[in-house]
Order: sequence, then structure tokens, then C-alpha cells
Amino acid sequence: MTIDETLRRGFKQAPFIAHLGIELGDLGPGFCEASLDLQPWHLQQTQVVHAGVIATLADHCAGAAASTNLPAGEFVVTAEYKINLLRGARGERLRCRAEVLKPGRRLAVVEAQVWSEAGGRSELVAKLNATMAVVQGR
Amino acid sequence: MTIDETLRRGFKQAPFIAHLGIELGDLGPGFCEASLDLQPWHLQQTQVVHAGVIATLADHCAGAAASTNLPAGEFVVTAEYKINLLRGARGERLRCRAEVLKPGRRLAVVEAQVWSEAGGRSELVAKLNATMAVVQGR
Amino acid sequence: MTIDETLRRGFKQAPFIAHLGIELGDLGPGFCEASLDLQPWHLQQTQVVHAGVIATLADHCAGAAASTNLPAGEFVVTAEYKINLLRGARGERLRCRAEVLKPGRRLAVVEAQVWSEAGGRSELVAKLNATMAVVQGR
Amino acid sequence: MTIDETLRRGFKQAPFIAHLGIELGDLGPGFCEASLDLQPWHLQQTQVVHAGVIATLADHCAGAAASTNLPAGEFVVTAEYKINLLRGARGERLRCRAEVLKPGRRLAVVEAQVWSEAGGRSELVAKLNATMAVVQGR
Repeated sequence: MTIDETLRRGFKQAPFIAHLGIELGDLGPGFCEASLDLQPWHLQQTQVVHAGVIATLADHCAGAAASTNLPAGEFVVTAEYKINLLRGARGERLRCRAEVLKPGRRLAVVEAQVWSEAGGRSELVAKLNATMAVVQGR
Repeated sequence: MTIDETLRRGFKQAPFIAHLGIELGDLGPGFCEASLDLQPWHLQQTQVVHAGVIATLADHCAGAAASTNLPAGEFVVTAEYKINLLRGARGERLRCRAEVLKPGRRLAVVEAQVWSEAGGRSELVAKLNATMAVVQGR
Repeated sequence: MTIDETLRRGFKQAPFIAHLGIELGDLGPGFCEASLDLQPWHLQQTQVVHAGVIATLADHCAGAAASTNLPAGEFVVTAEYKINLLRGARGERLRCRAEVLKPGRRLAVVEAQVWSEAGGRSELVAKLNATMAVVQGR
Repeated sequence: MTIDETLRRGFKQAPFIAHLGIELGDLGPGFCEASLDLQPWHLQQTQVVHAGVIATLADHCAGAAASTNLPAGEFVVTAEYKINLLRGARGERLRCRAEVLKPGRRLAVVEAQVWSEAGGRSELVAKLNATMAVVQGR
């Protein structure tokens, strides 16, 4: 199984990601894109998307981006991330693109941006910066 | 409606929080506790709890802790947070306690810790540190 | 005095910045560049530049970038920042460019990158992400 | 040379730390304390202590705390840190205490608090949270 196939399966087989409805888009060396069609239960009581939904999308996409650089049998776990929530997210869909800022054998630093989309209009709603730890696969 | 009642309703009326199953526990000036009974769909494909579940619990609980210090008509939104995922979370339940480190009229800094619990054993799995922006209620 | 002049004076009149030897370079709406000629006392005992030097350069430059968007009489203070130290910094000079990711009347989010330079070669050594709080001037 | 002696020498032999005037205080398994007598050149143009001084103290002290848990021949480098600047720091002296939140063979998570002191009064001015990477000694 190629890394690409492994990562595509990872999105479908990670229960929380599949449950939320997050879908893998494009994927290549050092980057990953994913998206999510918003549902009413993704919201905060103020009717904006809950930060937890945005962070889950960004973090998972960042992990996949980091994984594109790894040899078979290795995967990453998130050691930490910081996320800035730039404005309330509303709309029909969230879109995320994650890019590896610094690959490494033991640690990788990855950044991700999340946009909300509605009616053909796109708005940057969050920026994540994560440290991923490389671990040996099971 | 008191702040306490407002916050208790906030946990039930925030669709994503209610959907995840997060429940408010104790609440007082500058602190908040909440918990979550874990379900199979909360997991990552590696069978540990997805970081997004842990972060949602910690962030929401931190926001409630910050809100306990506010006059009526004000609420908080998360400007940013950092979370350190200290070890893989397994077990039956997550428990969170958030405490305000520095209250403020415009910004509050809040910290939250998350433990996983199983068979009477408790383990610290994450630490969050958030900056909350105070905004005027609608 | 224009914002530009105010910021240029800010680099010379901030005692710690002048002491370190940090010099303002280019400056415009939403961005700022600065640099530092490295001295032996800027180092860590391992002979790489101390993280504190890199962070000071990045944070100060980020604050100046945020200030370029402000009306006269307002300035910013750093509420928080995160910095990733991507590799050990060696060389003759550090160079920084900061850009505002999200301006705001009360909060601005700014990113900064720091490169080390030696013999015409440049290497990214750090990435900072800061939340700046806008305050009324004295 | 014991870890304790190594760390004490580290404070004196790190050029930037010695130059700033940072002094190691108490030290033990999983914690470290340090302090700094403030000088006029440590300040920002607004007469508060520059964030770079506070961050340098907190980061270096956090690294020493993480090092207390290591076998001989290993040391740590800061992978990343986040610092919240809670209020403007004024006074005669800064004091820092760092504690390891989660030790590890490859990564350690450390927290540090910084207080400003003046006339017997102490005030919390900053909180740092760092990820330290363990590396083999030279």
C-alpha cells in the first residue's frame, strides 16, 4: 500500500474524522488538502462553527501532510499545536490546506489554514501551527 | 438568568458540545469542570481518543471558566489556544478542569487540563492554554 | 510624526532592542523587516544563537508590523506568541520579516520568519505567530 | 561532573545568559529556579521589561528543568514554546520557576512562570509552555 493509499484510508478509518464528515482532497509531498460540509450540529451556540470542528480538521490535515514525507512503517502523532481563530466561521463548507514548514526524522513542523466557504466566497478563519512527532508504526 | 444558569444552558445549547456528549460538572468563580463519556466514534484510527475531541472539551471548558468572571451581557470567544497532547488517551471517560490564570476586561488567559479515566485510574493527557477575547453580548 | 517615523524611533529608543543591535529595515502597510549582526554574546553555550535573541527579533518585528496598520495614538503590546525553533542558527546575521495575518481594531495576528545568513547563504531558523493587543497610546 | 554542576556551569557559560545577568537559583529533579536583576537596558521603550528578556529567562530556566531528568550525555534543545505576557513587568528583579509537566525520553513538556518583584511585592507577569527535544550530547 502506498503512503497515498494509507493516508486516504486513514481519513476513512479514523472514526472521529469519518463521523464529522471530513474528506481528504488533494495530497502530495509535504502538503494535504481536506474539506468538510457543515451541518447544524457542527455549530457553537452563537451559530458559528465550533472551534473544535475547525481545529480537528486542521490538525488531522496537518498530520497527513507530515506523513507524506515519511518512509513506510512510520507515522506521526501530534505533540502540540497552536491555533488562531481569526474570525467566526459561517457558511456551507470548510476547506483546509496544510503544508510542512520543516520536515524532520523525529519532529516535523506543519502549518494549516482553514477557510469557510459560502456562495463562492472564501474567507480565512483559522491558522494552525503544529509539532508532529514521528513514531515507528505498529 | 444567573451566569451559572447561562453557562449550564450553554453546554446544552451548543450543538457540537451536546452532540459530542460533553457535560458540565462543577462551576465557580474562575473555574469550570466538564466530562465526556467516551464512545467508539471519538477515536483516532490508532484507537486513542482523537486530539480534536480532547481539544474541544478543553477549549469549551476554558471558555466557560473565563465566562464565570464576566458581568451579565458579556461573553468570550477563543482568540487562540495551544494544546500539548502529553500521551495517548484511552479509557472510559475524559475529565477536564479549566482555571483562569489571568482575568481581564478585554482578554483572559485560561489553562485547562484533561485526564483520561479508566477503572478508577486517572492520567493527565493534555494541557491547554488559551487567550479568550471578551465581547459584548448580542 | 508619521507612523513610519514613530516605528523607526521605536527601534532606536527601545533600550533592549538597541542594546542587542537589532536594526529596522523595510517597513510598509502590514509588514516589517529587521536584522541583527550576530556577536559572540548572542550565543548559547552550544555555539548556536540563543533562542531568546531570535524570539526578541521576531516579536519586536511582529509588533512593528502590526503597528503599521494603526491610527496615530494607538500602539500594540504582545499578548502572547508561539515560536518554533526549526534548526540551530549559526552565521553572521539574522534577518526577519513579519507580516500581519489578520489586522483588527482590538487584536492583530502576526507571523514572522527568521533566517540566519552566512556567506550569501540563507536558512529559515524560526517561525513566530503572535497575538498583539491594540492599546491607546500614552 | 554531576547534572547539577553541568547545569550550573551552563548558566555561566551560555554567553547570552551571562550577558543578561540571569542567575541560577535552586535546582532539583524536574524543576529549576532562576532570577535576573533588572537593568535599564532590559526595558522596552514603554519602560516595561522587554518581552524578549522575560522569554529568555523562562525558556532557559525551562530547558534546565528538563535537563535535570536526563542521563549524563544528553541535553535538550527548545523545539517550540508559547508565552503569555500577562501584564507589563516593572520592578527590580524577575524571578522564574520552571517545572516539568511531562518528562520523556524524546520530548519533555515544561512550564515556567515569571514574576516581577519590587519592594517585597511579587506579581505574575508571564507563563511559558515549552516542548523540549532530547538530543545526544556532543
